[in-house]
Amino acid sequence: MEFWSSQKLEDEIMKETRNLSLVMDFYELTMSQCYFNLDKNREVVFDLFYRHNPEDGGLCIFAGLEQVIEYVKNLHFEKEEIEYLRSLNQFTDEFLEYLSTVRFTGDIYAIPEGTPVFPYEPLVRVKAPIIEAQLVETALLLALNHQTLIATKARRIVQASDGRAVMEFGARRAHNFDAAIYGARAAYIVGCAGSATTYAGKEYGLPVLGTMAHSFIQSFDSEYDAFLYYAKTYPESCTLLIDTYSTLKSGIKNAIKVAKDYLEPNGYRLKGVRIDSGDMAYLSKKVRKELDAAGLEDCQIVVSNSLDEYVITSLIHQQGAKIDSFGVGENLICSKNSPVFGGVYKLVAIEKDGKIIPKIKISDNVEKVTNPGLKKLYRIIDKETNMAQADLMALWDEELDESKDLTIYHPMSRWKYKVIPAGSYILKELLVPIFIRGEQVYEEPTLDEIRAYCAEQLEYIWEEIKRFEYPQEYYVDLTEKLLTLKLEMLNEYK
Amino acid sequence: MEFWSSQKLEDEIMKETRNLSLVMDFYELTMSQCYFNLDKNREVVFDLFYRHNPEDGGLCIFAGLEQVIEYVKNLHFEKEEIEYLRSLNQFTDEFLEYLSTVRFTGDIYAIPEGTPVFPYEPLVRVKAPIIEAQLVETALLLALNHQTLIATKARRIVQASDGRAVMEFGARRAHNFDAAIYGARAAYIVGCAGSATTYAGKEYGLPVLGTMAHSFIQSFDSEYDAFLYYAKTYPESCTLLIDTYSTLKSGIKNAIKVAKDYLEPNGYRLKGVRIDSGDMAYLSKKVRKELDAAGLEDCQIVVSNSLDEYVITSLIHQQGAKIDSFGVGENLICSKNSPVFGGVYKLVAIEKDGKIIPKIKISDNVEKVTNPGLKKLYRIIDKETNMAQADLMALWDEELDESKDLTIYHPMSRWKYKVIPAGSYILKELLVPIFIRGEQVYEEPTLDEIRAYCAEQLEYIWEEIKRFEYPQEYYVDLTEKLLTLKLEMLNEYK
Repeated sequence: MEFWSSQKLEDEIMKETRNLSLVMDFYELTMSQCYFNLDKNREVVFDLFYRHNPEDGGLCIFAGLEQVIEYVKNLHFEKEEIEYLRSLNQFTDEFLEYLSTVRFTGDIYAIPEGTPVFPYEPLVRVKAPIIEAQLVETALLLALNHQTLIATKARRIVQASDGRAVMEFGARRAHNFDAAIYGARAAYIVGCAGSATTYAGKEYGLPVLGTMAHSFIQSFDSEYDAFLYYAKTYPESCTLLIDTYSTLKSGIKNAIKVAKDYLEPNGYRLKGVRIDSGDMAYLSKKVRKELDAAGLEDCQIVVSNSLDEYVITSLIHQQGAKIDSFGVGENLICSKNSPVFGGVYKLVAIEKDGKIIPKIKISDNVEKVTNPGLKKLYRIIDKETNMAQADLMALWDEELDESKDLTIYHPMSRWKYKVIPAGSYILKELLVPIFIRGEQVYEEPTLDEIRAYCAEQLEYIWEEIKRFEYPQEYYVDLTEKLLTLKLEMLNEYK
Repeated sequence: MEFWSSQKLEDEIMKETRNLSLVMDFYELTMSQCYFNLDKNREVVFDLFYRHNPEDGGLCIFAGLEQVIEYVKNLHFEKEEIEYLRSLNQFTDEFLEYLSTVRFTGDIYAIPEGTPVFPYEPLVRVKAPIIEAQLVETALLLALNHQTLIATKARRIVQASDGRAVMEFGARRAHNFDAAIYGARAAYIVGCAGSATTYAGKEYGLPVLGTMAHSFIQSFDSEYDAFLYYAKTYPESCTLLIDTYSTLKSGIKNAIKVAKDYLEPNGYRLKGVRIDSGDMAYLSKKVRKELDAAGLEDCQIVVSNSLDEYVITSLIHQQGAKIDSFGVGENLICSKNSPVFGGVYKLVAIEKDGKIIPKIKISDNVEKVTNPGLKKLYRIIDKETNMAQADLMALWDEELDESKDLTIYHPMSRWKYKVIPAGSYILKELLVPIFIRGEQVYEEPTLDEIRAYCAEQLEYIWEEIKRFEYPQEYYVDLTEKLLTLKLEMLNEYK
C-alpha cells in the first residue's frame, strides 16, 4: 500500500507503459455508476469459466494469469481518462471523483498457469466490491481467453510433433503486436522450443530463432553466394533455407557444397536446412538421403509451410517424412481452426445484509445454467495410477476428508454419481490465492517454471483425454452439497 | 528531423509507450548483420500484397497504416534492447553499435486507409537501404494484416445490416489488448456505429456504447427494480437488457412497465431493448408487437447473439425480424470464419551498381510468382458509370495518357487483354507517399475522415464485387511494359 501513497513515484512508473485500464466494455462503467449510487461496497463473487474445448478437444491449458495480475495491479484512472469519461456527459462528478481513486481491493483466486483445465470449472474467482469486480471483467476475459486459446492450440501441435522441436513463427499473421508477443509466451508454456518474435525473447527469456528469408537469397547473385556468406557469418549455427529456386535441383546441392567448401574445412558442421514450400514428405525424404550420402547425418531438416497438428501427424506417422523440427506460423498464432475462446464471467454470489447469497443464471439451455456460490475446486488423483480421475467443485465451507469415501455427482443429475473409495485418492486444490484484499500474495513463477509445471501436470492426464479425435470426456463433478444447492435454486425459479 | 536531434526530448517521449521495435522475426536481425558486413547502404524495394480475399469475398478494405507510421517513426533500439541482443552471442559489437543508431531513412508509399483493395496489388511499397527495409517487415505485416482483416470482415457485416447500426462488442474475445483496440478502430472505418471498447473511444474518438450485463439484473432483487434503477440513472439513453429471465414472460413486460411508471411521467422515452439470447427472429417480432401496442413505436430493438453477416442477412431478408441495430462480437473481432490474413512482403527490386534491378520470385505455383520492379498502381474509373473498372500496375517510369487508348493485360498472359478507349476513363493513382527519405510527408487523416473516405471509395465498386456469394472477380492487370518485363524474367529463369 505504501506504493500508492507516493503520487510522484506512481506517476513515474505509469509513464513507462500504456495505461490499459480503459480496455473495458463501456457497460462496466454505466453499471458501475449505478452501483456507486446504490451501494458501492457490496461484495460479489464472479467465476470465470468456459463451456467448450476448442476443436472438440479434451482439455485446455490455462494461460495468461501474469497479464491479469499486471492489469489488476495497475487498474487506475488518471486525469486524462477521467476527463475523457467526463466528456461523454453520462457520469456525475461524484462518480468520476470516486473512479479517480479506485483500486482493486478484492480477492482473486486462480488456477496456476500451465494447468490442464476443463469446461465449466472456475479458472478464476473474483470476490470484490461490486464495482471493482465489474471493472476488471473485460481485461480478465481477453487476456485469459487469448493466451489459453493459443496455449491449447500449441499444446496440440507439440503433442503431434512427438518429441521433435516446434518453433513458433507466426508474428506476421498474429492479430497485432500483443497477439504476437503473448502468443509466443503461451506457445512456450506448452513446450514450443522458442519463437521468432524477438521482443518475446527479450521480455520472457524464451529462445529466439530464425535464420534467413527468401529475399536474402534473392539479394545475392547466386544461391551459393548467399549460403556461403551466411555460413561465414554464422558458422556455428548455420541453417540454410533451400527452397528459393528449387529444393532438389539447387538448394540442397548448394547447401552441401557450402558445408564441404567452407564449413568442414574450418571445423564446423552444417546445422540444418529449412524447406518452406512444396511437398514436405517427398522433399524431406529426398533431402535426408542427399545429406546422409554427403556424410551430413547430423544436419537437421526443418520444415515450415502451413503446418498444424493434423499435417504434422500425417507427415510423421503416415508419410514417413524425415523432419527434425517444425516451424509453425498462422495455424498456431491465430488458432486458425477455432480462433475464438469463449471464456465467460458470471455472477455466482452476492452480499446481502452481511451474508454471501449464492446466485444462479437460469437458461432454457441446460448447458448455460451456472454453478452457484463461492466454490473450491479439486483435482482427484487416483493413488494407484497417479492419474487425474476427475475434477470436483465443492462449496467454500465444505471439508473433504481423504480418509472417507468421496461421492461425486454429475453437474445436473442426482442419479448420476460415482463413489471413490476412502484411501484410494488424493485431492489437490486447484484455485490458489493471487490477491487478498487487493494485495498480491501470489509469487509469480518464471516462464520456465510455468513450462516445467505444465509438462508435469500434463502427466496426470490420460492419453485418452489428450487425443485429437473423439477424446474421452474428463469429468468435472459436484459434491452432493453443491448439487443440492443448485437443484434447489433451479426448483425455486420454476 | 528536429525531433530526433534532442536526445532528452526523445527519451521522455519514448517512456510513455512500449518500445515495440523488437517485435520482429529474429531472422530480420541475422540477415541484417550479413547486410551490415556486406553493403548496408544498398537500396532495395519490397512490395506488401496479399493473394486471396478472406471468405472468398470480392475485395478487402485496407487498414492499419496509422500504426505502421507510428512503428516506422519510432523504430530504434535503446540500450536495453541492444544489451539483450548482445547477450545472444550472435552479433558483433560493430553491428550492435550500428543498430543502436539505426532509424528508418527510406521511402514508403501506401494506399490510404479505407480504400477497397484487391489481390496481388502492392498495398505498400518500401524502398530503403536493405537493413531498414528488412527491419520493418514483421511489424508492417502484422499491423496491416490484422486491421485489414477486421475492416474487411466488419464491412461485410455492415453491408448485411443494410443501413441498420452495427456495434462492435468483441473485446472480451479479441486476441488480446491490441486486437480489441485496433479491431474497434478497423470496424469503425468501414461503418460500424461504434464500439464497446472504452479505450478505443478515448484514443480514436469513436462512439462508445453499452448499457448493462445480465449480472446487473441479477444483482437486484427483481428485474423490475434493476430496470427502474437504470432508468432513473440514465433516463435519456435508457436501453434495457430484457433476456435475463425470460424475454417474453418478464423482460419486455418489465421494460414497458418502467417506461410507463417512470420514464414517460418524467418526460422521457424508452430508447431501446436488447435481446442477447434465444431466437432473434421470433423474439424480435413478438417484442416489436408488444412495444407498438404500448405506444413505444420509437423504442429500438438491439440484438447481440453470435451474429455475423450471414445470420444478419437471414434475419432481415428471410425471416422478417424486427431489428434496429446489431451488436456483433467474436465473429467480427476474430474474423472467426477466416481468422488469418495472408499479407506478404516480397523483394521486387534491388540496387546494383547504382541501378535499380527488378527481381522476381519464381515458384512452381503460378499464383506465387511475383510482379517484378518498382511499380505504380492505378484505379481505372469508367467515366460513363463512374465505377471502377479494374486496377492497373505499371512500371515506375511509365507515362500513361488518359487521352489515348489503354491496353491492360492479364498478369500472366499476353493474349488476354482489354482495350479501354481513349477519353472513356480516368486514372487514379493509389499509392501515395508516406515517408520520403525517412521523413513523414503524409498528413494523416482523422478516423472520421478515413471512415468517410472508405464510404466514398466503396461507391466506385460494383455490387457484383461486394456480394458474399461468388462475387465477380475484380481485375488487377498489368501494362504491356510490365508484363513484358515479367515474362522475360520468367523465360530467363527457364
